[in-house]
Amino acid sequence: MQYTLAALVKDLDVTLQGDPTCLVSGVCTIQQSRPGYITFLINPLYRKYLPKTQAAAVILAENDAGACPVNAVIARNPYYVYSKIAAFFTKQPAFSQGMHPSVVVGKETHIDPSVSIAPHCVIGARVHIGPHVTIGAGCVIGNDVQIGEASQLAPRVTLYDKVTIGKRVIIASGVVIGGDGFGFANEKGVWHSVPQLGGVDIGDDVSIGANTNIACGAVENTVIEHGVKLDSLIQVGHNVKIGANTIIAGCVAIAGSAVIGKQCMIGGASNVAGHVTLCDGAVITGMSAVSNSIQQPGIYSSGIVGMVPHLEFRKNNARFHRLAQLIQRVKVLETRVKETIERVTERAKS
Amino acid sequence: MQYTLAALVKDLDVTLQGDPTCLVSGVCTIQQSRPGYITFLINPLYRKYLPKTQAAAVILAENDAGACPVNAVIARNPYYVYSKIAAFFTKQPAFSQGMHPSVVVGKETHIDPSVSIAPHCVIGARVHIGPHVTIGAGCVIGNDVQIGEASQLAPRVTLYDKVTIGKRVIIASGVVIGGDGFGFANEKGVWHSVPQLGGVDIGDDVSIGANTNIACGAVENTVIEHGVKLDSLIQVGHNVKIGANTIIAGCVAIAGSAVIGKQCMIGGASNVAGHVTLCDGAVITGMSAVSNSIQQPGIYSSGIVGMVPHLEFRKNNARFHRLAQLIQRVKVLETRVKETIERVTERAKS
Amino acid sequence: MQYTLAALVKDLDVTLQGDPTCLVSGVCTIQQSRPGYITFLINPLYRKYLPKTQAAAVILAENDAGACPVNAVIARNPYYVYSKIAAFFTKQPAFSQGMHPSVVVGKETHIDPSVSIAPHCVIGARVHIGPHVTIGAGCVIGNDVQIGEASQLAPRVTLYDKVTIGKRVIIASGVVIGGDGFGFANEKGVWHSVPQLGGVDIGDDVSIGANTNIACGAVENTVIEHGVKLDSLIQVGHNVKIGANTIIAGCVAIAGSAVIGKQCMIGGASNVAGHVTLCDGAVITGMSAVSNSIQQPGIYSSGIVGMVPHLEFRKNNARFHRLAQLIQRVKVLETRVKETIERVTERAKS
Repeated sequence: MQYTLAALVKDLDVTLQGDPTCLVSGVCTIQQSRPGYITFLINPLYRKYLPKTQAAAVILAENDAGACPVNAVIARNPYYVYSKIAAFFTKQPAFSQGMHPSVVVGKETHIDPSVSIAPHCVIGARVHIGPHVTIGAGCVIGNDVQIGEASQLAPRVTLYDKVTIGKRVIIASGVVIGGDGFGFANEKGVWHSVPQLGGVDIGDDVSIGANTNIACGAVENTVIEHGVKLDSLIQVGHNVKIGANTIIAGCVAIAGSAVIGKQCMIGGASNVAGHVTLCDGAVITGMSAVSNSIQQPGIYSSGIVGMVPHLEFRKNNARFHRLAQLIQRVKVLETRVKETIERVTERAKS
Repeated sequence: MQYTLAALVKDLDVTLQGDPTCLVSGVCTIQQSRPGYITFLINPLYRKYLPKTQAAAVILAENDAGACPVNAVIARNPYYVYSKIAAFFTKQPAFSQGMHPSVVVGKETHIDPSVSIAPHCVIGARVHIGPHVTIGAGCVIGNDVQIGEASQLAPRVTLYDKVTIGKRVIIASGVVIGGDGFGFANEKGVWHSVPQLGGVDIGDDVSIGANTNIACGAVENTVIEHGVKLDSLIQVGHNVKIGANTIIAGCVAIAGSAVIGKQCMIGGASNVAGHVTLCDGAVITGMSAVSNSIQQPGIYSSGIVGMVPHLEFRKNNARFHRLAQLIQRVKVLETRVKETIERVTERAKS
Repeated sequence: MQYTLAALVKDLDVTLQGDPTCLVSGVCTIQQSRPGYITFLINPLYRKYLPKTQAAAVILAENDAGACPVNAVIARNPYYVYSKIAAFFTKQPAFSQGMHPSVVVGKETHIDPSVSIAPHCVIGARVHIGPHVTIGAGCVIGNDVQIGEASQLAPRVTLYDKVTIGKRVIIASGVVIGGDGFGFANEKGVWHSVPQLGGVDIGDDVSIGANTNIACGAVENTVIEHGVKLDSLIQVGHNVKIGANTIIAGCVAIAGSAVIGKQCMIGGASNVAGHVTLCDGAVITGMSAVSNSIQQPGIYSSGIVGMVPHLEFRKNNARFHRLAQLIQRVKVLETRVKETIERVTERAKS
């Protein structure tokens, strides 16, 4: 796979500085640049690597172009341009087109002839799979599922019944969608399962990372709108709604009936409590405990961060748990100081 | 699927207000109620939707019955009654009875003729599977496993060797039970695997959510007692014991050798440290760090919650990490105030 | 399976106290010791069980040997010695040698004749699998994968393309290695996938727990060095590097491009932020938020721990969020006290 620089940028809104016929055979980082490869400069911390780069070309912003010793692809949004150029060098798909004979398919299921289904998959009844969908080995798809055009399921994905997947959705290995939400009614100390009757609706251009779980709705559907990007090991509880183009990093736990707006960003390992609402454009930094709703766009955080030596941590914890005493000491001081000032003032008068 | 209201409540301890012959064809939420469907009122926040509901009937508590404009199912425990009525409208099982020819079965394994096993499962040796068990596609079951009557394994579940599953247990997709606990002995800077020889015992009526992992015991068995409900993406370490009818929400991490009592509740994304003990009836709110044992029933929490704008968060963090200085300032004040009061008092005497 | 005590310790650097011909048929805990079994004393809390043990023998340190009423295996590192002795009693592998006929194998793939591959696996093209590797049922292995000698994949593991696994690596069920890292470029409010072109390199003697996910690198490879032990439900983001003989407990989230040194220990449910660096020998206690780099070996922690009754927790939270006011009150006090002291001093002079 070799491309000229001109071919790589043909459809992109960029300015080429240097030789458009230069051949590129892959991408590299700017810290470990290699002759014949194209690299990119996005993080200012790595600007120091630019003057000595050996790459064939660098994708960068206009203000870095002057310092570039090799061919430059000058872009308003270099990371976006990098994403388009890197796509020329992606890995080959693991399995060729067509359905493997070991695949088991239910009744009244429609599979477009352009679909690829790898070995040992099981597809339920009344399923509809659109054109150019690829399904990795060992996937299990329930009844009444719909998968839109050009979506890709990695190996070992489970879609339960009544799951609807949009177009160009990317689902990583180990993902489970549409399993029962966590609903139990307590009667005399015993928990009774509350049937989870809803499905899951996944919009177009959604991406879902490995081993993430999205529960079905209790009555209505759990909804992931178009353009949402979910990382790995995320838990999405029943009835959750995630608005369009929201991005959520790994290990986030979203409890049932939470409603997350459009264009939100949630940092890794954060937790969103049940029934909480985040407005459009809410940004939550990593490791936050979102226990209350957010009404205004902006950046929000919670808790205590910052690593300290363990002994200091223990002292900090003790201080925190004695805050009530500290407040009491301040209160006593306030009273004493007030009294003392009064005495001093009184005496001054006398 | 249509039922009369009388049929739906036949075995339930409820009072019918209205027309018992009314036909019901599904369930709906009270916010989005639909003619011909039955709904429920449990959360007082939704009481405002009751007067205008278009549902065929509403399951509710006695004090709400007067405001109900349609048929009412009056119950002491409306959510429990809803769980029983909703069960009439659950999804159909994905696969019919019997064992698919692609299933591979080990030696000396007994499978009841009423069992359903979907394609591409692998069952080990000396396994015993009781009546009416259903096993979804792609499950892998090790040697010396027992599965009790009417238990249901969703697709893609792994049971390692020596796992015992009770009756009516529900296991969601991606669950792993009985894998090695995390035990390593350090010898000269290198970690050596400590063989994990125990199994896992799962009681009757347990429910386990998607992608949850339950490790085997190091020597004795890890034990999950009857009626325990575990949500998704939970980690249960080796040697853990969870008492009967305890309920644990998603993404909880339970470290090795923790002992959790009966009738406990643990909120989502909480962590339980190793060797910690929770007494019966301990309730842990979500996102807690359970680093110490709990001896008395009650509701417990830890840490800091509450989202604030990021700038305020940074200031709060700085204030927290300077608590030692604040305490020192208060101490200095206390000394100065004491001295000043003494001086003032002394002078008053003179 | 029965062994003499002498046979069990033949290759170990220990001292035998008692009868070397004593027969041992398994291991037990010291709390629940059984005749004919060997047990161990490591945790000083369990020393009280030693005088009354009914076990055939006890593995212990020299200073406990005097109190041992039965045969004793005296060791410098009793837990390590236990790990070697317990290995005599491990479970039998689930599947016998050879490749099941249902396994699908791609082109130009080399599989050593000593390899065991259980049913319903799918192996890609240009894969190399070394001697004595065992692969559990339902595993899916992509293209261009290498698996070193004597490594063991449990059932239902996914290796994406370009993953390299060292020798004697143990991978538990549900693990996903080499899936896309979480990289998206925002252009006009829409997230565009950034191709993830790197692979994953796993060194020798690594262990990876159930349902853990290790993402591939964005450009270069994600790297797990030799001897690393990862527990279950861990997330390892793209470009992460984990140094040799580091051990990480369950549910830890490691964000992209974090660099973790050698011989580190990270406690369960901790989170490591992106691009953070931990030096060799850093120890992070459980439930920590590692938001900054660590430059010196030692034990580090963050945040607040300690369970308190919920009402106290709410008060603590309110106090924390009012720290600014408390600091202001102290500041006011300081000014007033200073002024009062000045007044008193001035008057004393007059």
